[in-house]
Amino acid sequence: MDEFGAIARYFAPLAAGEPGALGLTDDAAVLAPAPGMAFVLTKDLMAAGVHFLADDPPDLVARKLLRVNLSDLAAMGARPRAYLVGLTLPRPADEAWIAAFARGLAQDQAAFGVALAGGDTTAHDGPLVVSLTAVGEARPGGALRRSGARPGDLVCVSGTLGDAALGLRCLRGALGGLPPASRAALVERYRLPQPRVALGLALVGLASACIDVSDGLLADLGHVAETSGCRIVVRQDRVPLSPAAAQAVAGDPALMGDALAGGDDYELAFTVPPAAASRLPGEATVIGVVEAGAGVRLVDAGGNALPVPGRGGWTHF
Amino acid sequence: MDEFGAIARYFAPLAAGEPGALGLTDDAAVLAPAPGMAFVLTKDLMAAGVHFLADDPPDLVARKLLRVNLSDLAAMGARPRAYLVGLTLPRPADEAWIAAFARGLAQDQAAFGVALAGGDTTAHDGPLVVSLTAVGEARPGGALRRSGARPGDLVCVSGTLGDAALGLRCLRGALGGLPPASRAALVERYRLPQPRVALGLALVGLASACIDVSDGLLADLGHVAETSGCRIVVRQDRVPLSPAAAQAVAGDPALMGDALAGGDDYELAFTVPPAAASRLPGEATVIGVVEAGAGVRLVDAGGNALPVPGRGGWTHF
Repeated sequence: MDEFGAIARYFAPLAAGEPGALGLTDDAAVLAPAPGMAFVLTKDLMAAGVHFLADDPPDLVARKLLRVNLSDLAAMGARPRAYLVGLTLPRPADEAWIAAFARGLAQDQAAFGVALAGGDTTAHDGPLVVSLTAVGEARPGGALRRSGARPGDLVCVSGTLGDAALGLRCLRGALGGLPPASRAALVERYRLPQPRVALGLALVGLASACIDVSDGLLADLGHVAETSGCRIVVRQDRVPLSPAAAQAVAGDPALMGDALAGGDDYELAFTVPPAAASRLPGEATVIGVVEAGAGVRLVDAGGNALPVPGRGGWTHF
Repeated sequence: MDEFGAIARYFAPLAAGEPGALGLTDDAAVLAPAPGMAFVLTKDLMAAGVHFLADDPPDLVARKLLRVNLSDLAAMGARPRAYLVGLTLPRPADEAWIAAFARGLAQDQAAFGVALAGGDTTAHDGPLVVSLTAVGEARPGGALRRSGARPGDLVCVSGTLGDAALGLRCLRGALGGLPPASRAALVERYRLPQPRVALGLALVGLASACIDVSDGLLADLGHVAETSGCRIVVRQDRVPLSPAAAQAVAGDPALMGDALAGGDDYELAFTVPPAAASRLPGEATVIGVVEAGAGVRLVDAGGNALPVPGRGGWTHF
């Protein structure tokens, strides 16, 4: 199998739903946004040993790669449309790996309504590196931004936090005291994020600022605070935990740091004006408030400052 | 320095010219094509030891990465607009390397009129891998394609071929008998492609099919033949050589294979209807003709079949 064989056999079928992909037989795709819409473009990469484990199943690697990028689109309130993928495979390229990777993409394409529009594949003497550029659509000026939080806004987060970081601990052999079902639930959150695409679309016109939680809750809220020119106050006791994460934290309170500073949860953290509080989506939990000032402050139920765990999220270097 | 420091210091300035990049402070860019235009999207990656040498200067790696992607836009007749970049750096990340890489991007941004719109940076225990998604603009339905060649069309190529492959030989210590200036000229072609952006734009409405020569002339013309459903006949004696390549081939006729099957020249190979022959751009050389049939045929001046050198181009696996 050479690169062209892999494209024709495994990747061209993934492009069938997008006429602008030109069947992957040209040098580039030609895509026009729907009338009145702009494109929303994001590019995230993942490296074996950094963002996933080298022996993770290839279909899960593919789905995680697609989903972390769809999560960025969700944070902008964009509707997913297409994507381009880049593979740098350990030499020699393993056709079975490529086939399983493509199966994972096919499965999630159907779930999220996107199609492949292009990409590049090579092999090198090194670990697997995968990258993806996701293309979404939003109204020009209508995309969610990080910069719109204002004093008095409520700070919210979707779902539960810390599960992915705790799942990674399980994969590394820790948390052996948890029930197997709890460990499995945590590992699943690490391996397969659930991008909040529908929530992001629902937040357009409602949220004043939005970000996805990929670097850690406090670090990501720090980005919102910085770009908005505000302070964000988070009530630690309001940060939502899954049953499995609550079990883990009950056994070792220091693990609460994973909910506050662990990465890879891919929930949405967002702010809403108080007037919109009655329209909060069901998956949202209010965890704090925006104030005048700068930075992120972590407090207990009495408003007393708590230490910020860890270094405040993943920085990748 | 962490990832956010690198973005703010080295990459945000590269986004200043593109308002849709949102200063690289959000999860994604928001770009609308100019009225009446579509976006043309392509993604190429390069790995150290495969597409460039690990000790190549970082600014040249950056410029080559951008240019190989701009070459794909050129092959589609698209005007470059923006790009997203992905870096997977050997650990620990070297700030001086990043600074030099960003300088290379800045230099070529100015030359080609593009701006950075997003990306991702990480470090891993492996060789350098860089990827880039280029965004161009073309009229919907107006982009150059590979599929439009018809029997009777002339087959053309821009510039000269084989220089990049011969330059790589020089870097590996071969071709010691060539004058230093010739060796330097060949190495420069390998290190720094010249994407034919202006030519690609000029070919819109003129060429019936177009591709950039990245895998090797005969392999790339094979793609045109296949997607167009035609045969392409190439006169070997008409394939244009630079003075340095002609010197090399005079010393060793087998090196003509580099002009026919070597990759990385990033010229445009294209077909034009005979009626358009009088409007051929100055940088074009007619090297053959399109016939009914399939595949690529290499012939001498008398029309006799010649053996096709090598395996017909790079396949990367």
